Amino acid sequence: MKIRTATEADRDAIWSIFREVVAAGDTYALDPNISREDALAYWFAPGTRTYVAQGDRVEDGVATPGKPTASPEITCARKILGTYILRPNQSGGGSHVANAGFMVSEGARGQGIGRAMAEHCLSEARRRGFGALQFNYVISTNTAAIRLWQDLGFDIVGTLPSAFRHPDKGYVDVYVMYRSLLEDQA
Amino acid sequence: MKIRTATEADRDAIWSIFREVVAAGDTYALDPNISREDALAYWFAPGTRTYVAQGDRVEDGVATPGKPTASPEITCARKILGTYILRPNQSGGGSHVANAGFMVSEGARGQGIGRAMAEHCLSEARRRGFGALQFNYVISTNTAAIRLWQDLGFDIVGTLPSAFRHPDKGYVDVYVMYRSLLEDQA
Repeated sequence: MKIRTATEADRDAIWSIFREVVAAGDTYALDPNISREDALAYWFAPGTRTYVAQGDRVEDGVATPGKPTASPEITCARKILGTYILRPNQSGGGSHVANAGFMVSEGARGQGIGRAMAEHCLSEARRRGFGALQFNYVISTNTAAIRLWQDLGFDIVGTLPSAFRHPDKGYVDVYVMYRSLLEDQA
Repeated sequence: MKIRTATEADRDAIWSIFREVVAAGDTYALDPNISREDALAYWFAPGTRTYVAQGDRVEDGVATPGKPTASPEITCARKILGTYILRPNQSGGGSHVANAGFMVSEGARGQGIGRAMAEHCLSEARRRGFGALQFNYVISTNTAAIRLWQDLGFDIVGTLPSAFRHPDKGYVDVYVMYRSLLEDQA
């Protein structure tokens, strides 16, 4: 798997993942019926850097056992498994703190793609001079994400009571998570 | 003083307050050199409701002792003393939580205009069906604002360590503050 800056050619693949994640409605506070145009405007906003995780093989992440392998004609179209964005969380006096958002294709979960993108993101954020990385809105029921962020050194620094209306679980808390990037520049 | 929805005619007055507040650089994480166009696009963004606090007399908030009272020709141009915005803090499953931002003209501070706008805002937020009001970015050195929010029932629910670079004090903490609007609907 390779993580690289997204290009225009990735827009269809990103929209496909974005739509899937947002339609589920349990990890992002975004309109589940957001349009392609609004979704891509958000994911490719000015000041936002957009990345994709691309599989090594065209069938990566497709997970259809028994299906014949891809035909030679399409082996160049390597599958986009996930995408993330990195941007300043605020302007002015708050621009040294980064914010990021991650999405992994449903068929590609449980393979460490989120972790690989998060590690790439921490390295990119540090390289671009950010002093910290903040997640503004980690829904408390998203335990896989919370475990991953804690494992990567993030702390829960805030709890927003009942701030998210979960499609199955009703009103649930939301966490603000934060990690300084300074201590490991030594 | 009267608090009302802002109109096109208030844009100059709002920009004047906005520029003053942001140029000081100690209360908002916004570019101190933000353009008029960007500032007004932010303050009048789609989905954002914009209000102004308007003085009863034309000289309100001007604070120029010894100056003759305003000429009859301009008594209609009542001074805008402050402005605030109210909007959903997130979309989708997070849209029941409101967010607000307040700015008071330098010459009009210490007169309770911030408090009056905040009380108006709580009432507006409740009337519009929001279940809570969240401030994402209250800079810890802004003690007057923090005292006011606590007095109005807000709690500090998160602390972002060194998240703001203060023009005089260096890196300082930032608070996330939150107030449920449900308990007092009874």
